[in-house]
Amino acid sequence: MIRVIINGCCGKMGKVIANMASQNPDFEVVAGIDQNQCQCGFPVYKSLDEVDVDADVVIDFSYHTAVPQLLKAAVSKNLPVVVATTGLDEEEINSLREASNHIPIFRSANMSLGINVLISLVKEAARVLSDNFDIEILEMHHNMKKDSPSGTALLIADAINSVLADKMEYVYGRHSNIDKRNKNEIGIHALRGGTVVGEHEVIFAGHDEIIKISHSARSREIFGNGALLAAKFLINQKPGLYDMESLVKKG
Amino acid sequence: MIRVIINGCCGKMGKVIANMASQNPDFEVVAGIDQNQCQCGFPVYKSLDEVDVDADVVIDFSYHTAVPQLLKAAVSKNLPVVVATTGLDEEEINSLREASNHIPIFRSANMSLGINVLISLVKEAARVLSDNFDIEILEMHHNMKKDSPSGTALLIADAINSVLADKMEYVYGRHSNIDKRNKNEIGIHALRGGTVVGEHEVIFAGHDEIIKISHSARSREIFGNGALLAAKFLINQKPGLYDMESLVKKG
Amino acid sequence: MIRVIINGCCGKMGKVIANMASQNPDFEVVAGIDQNQCQCGFPVYKSLDEVDVDADVVIDFSYHTAVPQLLKAAVSKNLPVVVATTGLDEEEINSLREASNHIPIFRSANMSLGINVLISLVKEAARVLSDNFDIEILEMHHNMKKDSPSGTALLIADAINSVLADKMEYVYGRHSNIDKRNKNEIGIHALRGGTVVGEHEVIFAGHDEIIKISHSARSREIFGNGALLAAKFLINQKPGLYDMESLVKKG
Amino acid sequence: MIRVIINGCCGKMGKVIANMASQNPDFEVVAGIDQNQCQCGFPVYKSLDEVDVDADVVIDFSYHTAVPQLLKAAVSKNLPVVVATTGLDEEEINSLREASNHIPIFRSANMSLGINVLISLVKEAARVLSDNFDIEILEMHHNMKKDSPSGTALLIADAINSVLADKMEYVYGRHSNIDKRNKNEIGIHALRGGTVVGEHEVIFAGHDEIIKISHSARSREIFGNGALLAAKFLINQKPGLYDMESLVKKG
Repeated sequence: MIRVIINGCCGKMGKVIANMASQNPDFEVVAGIDQNQCQCGFPVYKSLDEVDVDADVVIDFSYHTAVPQLLKAAVSKNLPVVVATTGLDEEEINSLREASNHIPIFRSANMSLGINVLISLVKEAARVLSDNFDIEILEMHHNMKKDSPSGTALLIADAINSVLADKMEYVYGRHSNIDKRNKNEIGIHALRGGTVVGEHEVIFAGHDEIIKISHSARSREIFGNGALLAAKFLINQKPGLYDMESLVKKG
Repeated sequence: MIRVIINGCCGKMGKVIANMASQNPDFEVVAGIDQNQCQCGFPVYKSLDEVDVDADVVIDFSYHTAVPQLLKAAVSKNLPVVVATTGLDEEEINSLREASNHIPIFRSANMSLGINVLISLVKEAARVLSDNFDIEILEMHHNMKKDSPSGTALLIADAINSVLADKMEYVYGRHSNIDKRNKNEIGIHALRGGTVVGEHEVIFAGHDEIIKISHSARSREIFGNGALLAAKFLINQKPGLYDMESLVKKG
Repeated sequence: MIRVIINGCCGKMGKVIANMASQNPDFEVVAGIDQNQCQCGFPVYKSLDEVDVDADVVIDFSYHTAVPQLLKAAVSKNLPVVVATTGLDEEEINSLREASNHIPIFRSANMSLGINVLISLVKEAARVLSDNFDIEILEMHHNMKKDSPSGTALLIADAINSVLADKMEYVYGRHSNIDKRNKNEIGIHALRGGTVVGEHEVIFAGHDEIIKISHSARSREIFGNGALLAAKFLINQKPGLYDMESLVKKG
Repeated sequence: MIRVIINGCCGKMGKVIANMASQNPDFEVVAGIDQNQCQCGFPVYKSLDEVDVDADVVIDFSYHTAVPQLLKAAVSKNLPVVVATTGLDEEEINSLREASNHIPIFRSANMSLGINVLISLVKEAARVLSDNFDIEILEMHHNMKKDSPSGTALLIADAINSVLADKMEYVYGRHSNIDKRNKNEIGIHALRGGTVVGEHEVIFAGHDEIIKISHSARSREIFGNGALLAAKFLINQKPGLYDMESLVKKG
């Protein structure tokens, strides 16, 4: 039984993960941390320093400015931390690197196991196929999403580009072109509609054959799932900085 | 046995259709018309006027400037014509309308039965779903195609728009937008890669449900197939102008 | 503002629909009916006879044996009823037909608008394409589903069969066959995995072209959505029996 | 310029590869071997022993019984051989192993690069995901194919099984089951229709997320393409037995 403290337990994802952990026999939520009040079924504290129950790991779905202080307290309590909070600035990332000298820290740009497996697979496919195949990326999200393409689509494109000597150029929409496709193009297409949680597809199109690798998220619980997997992975690690690639490689 | 004359029999599509007709027990190619010479297995003439064998129908895969003269000769011989040639200008279309007072004429912006069925289905779907669903169109073609989006994608978009009071706006690529999707948008996405013959997909995304209608062309023979279906349909019709919608409706 | 009474308001789907109606400005839930107790935000009664508030329509997500009594009370109160309950036996269906002489009644084997649009589209496609295209049906559901194929897949197959003179034979799995596909076959394939809510796809495969029509359900709310659409449609109808086809046709 | 000898040059695939090699600036077909006569644009011999022109590699698309003799001659001429012929029996495979002590030999159960990349990706995905995801395999081929599922679908299933301790059970069709899916099941579904060359898809369905990896073959040229890639790879290798996995790993 892994004893979890949730930082940001009254937020949207904090509630999702509290609910998922409570239904998972391998986990027990022993405390939450939040500035706000909420009904949780476990004691809620204002900061990690105040938490006076024993725990094995902290899962953080809070706000990026809250991360350095959390890490400081985690180091003093010798607690591993899964940082699922996004949008960290340079200084906050430094605090993370610094803390990882003392405790195991897990951080990923996308907490879904599936998306990280997709990224690992498309890198491998790009490495083998890029000479003879054209690469296009497709993503679809709900009609309320403001940014396009999605951060995850760019994460995928950058991962592909990293194995292709960063020579690829991203193209975000083709219209009235009178030129044919450039060999070094990655087309990125942002579809929007309905309540779609998040779909990503990478297409490798070659001479009379097409390979597609896709991921479809059906709820935000996949990020909670990934955080729990990360927590389980992290409690057995030495101090250091880990990400989903470490977990995916372990298999 | 339907006796066919092929106008443009030495061109790319002329050869495809000659080959398909020869393998189809319902058809016999009795003559071809072309300015060029080619080995065909049937007599080739310079113009329809010169053709001196009996026939039931002309299939035209030539060049748009050749159409008016062909129709004139067809009227004088009282022969139905399937016009599969594209790019007709206003005057050429008028010659077509004029000739259709005397002979049955079939013309379609896309000769594939499947694409026309797709168009008929998406119009019906748009009529029922448009209040509560967002519409996006995806097309994929080989990496040598110069124009984007494809003419067929625009044909599909226009067909949808026609049942929605022409109030839809086409959007050809989303990038760095800080605005969410507009209700009256149709997103159109042009993918390019490999040797893909032609894929079109229309997505209707609503509240927690998605309907997709797609067509995949695997060779240019589908246009020949459509022309043969059109020929079979046309020989039983009265003078007039017909298109794939007439054929699709008949079922 | 449409005033709704929910029969079976404490059940799974009853709660879904109560929640959806409360978030929809066009609807107000004025009463619920259930044998059990639940916290609902509106008064709950044991039977429709006891309900003493004014309403425009009843939505029924209860149990099939409860339907006849509900209809009797609805007739005496002159209230339209949307029957979303499934599994009605012959006698219960008769009570429905009988009641529809006095009040408007809506009933559908599947309450999702999208699935019914899919059915309408595949019928049209089958009518036009069946001579030259092979038809296969694919469905995917979560790994806890016990029956296969899904009732909806069979509903789709039967709808296709109904426009093809009922001459099609259903094939549920191909293995080690040494015979090629029969022309009059509809292949039906039941995939199971994960937490998939429900996917259905109909494939029409012809000579070098493929048309696919698919529906993906992302939550059970689509059935609630369909029930609300049906309620809105029903309050303006004369006594009679209506189904999703009536609503889809209206567009 | 790689000088190629094609064994079986008058057969279906022999012609495909001769045509592809002639259009590829990296290759020159210097001789063919066949019992039959055909117009080829290069000299055709009855056996490799008789071939008296210099060459770099032999590509074999013949019949399994012809393989041992071919290999014997290739050893005596010190020529690498790409064996694309399928259906080798135990003894023929032994002749292949024996010959590989003296010359580089390439052999693959499926000569398409894409299919082999797919197999490599699904093995990796299965290794990481199998604990929490269900696996289903889908394949579609034309309506004249007699065996089902396809040999390639079984190849894929076996590859997945090999990384899961061979504990998986294959299920070929679900119908009227009253039991839910078994955790150790791989569902394999064989769709048949139209003129489809070959589609394969592997689905990993987990908790609210789905990963799909698919391959679509659009012509038989992909096998020729793979053979040419194999030839280019093979001429730089030491004696030994190689397969597509060697080539895919090299990237």
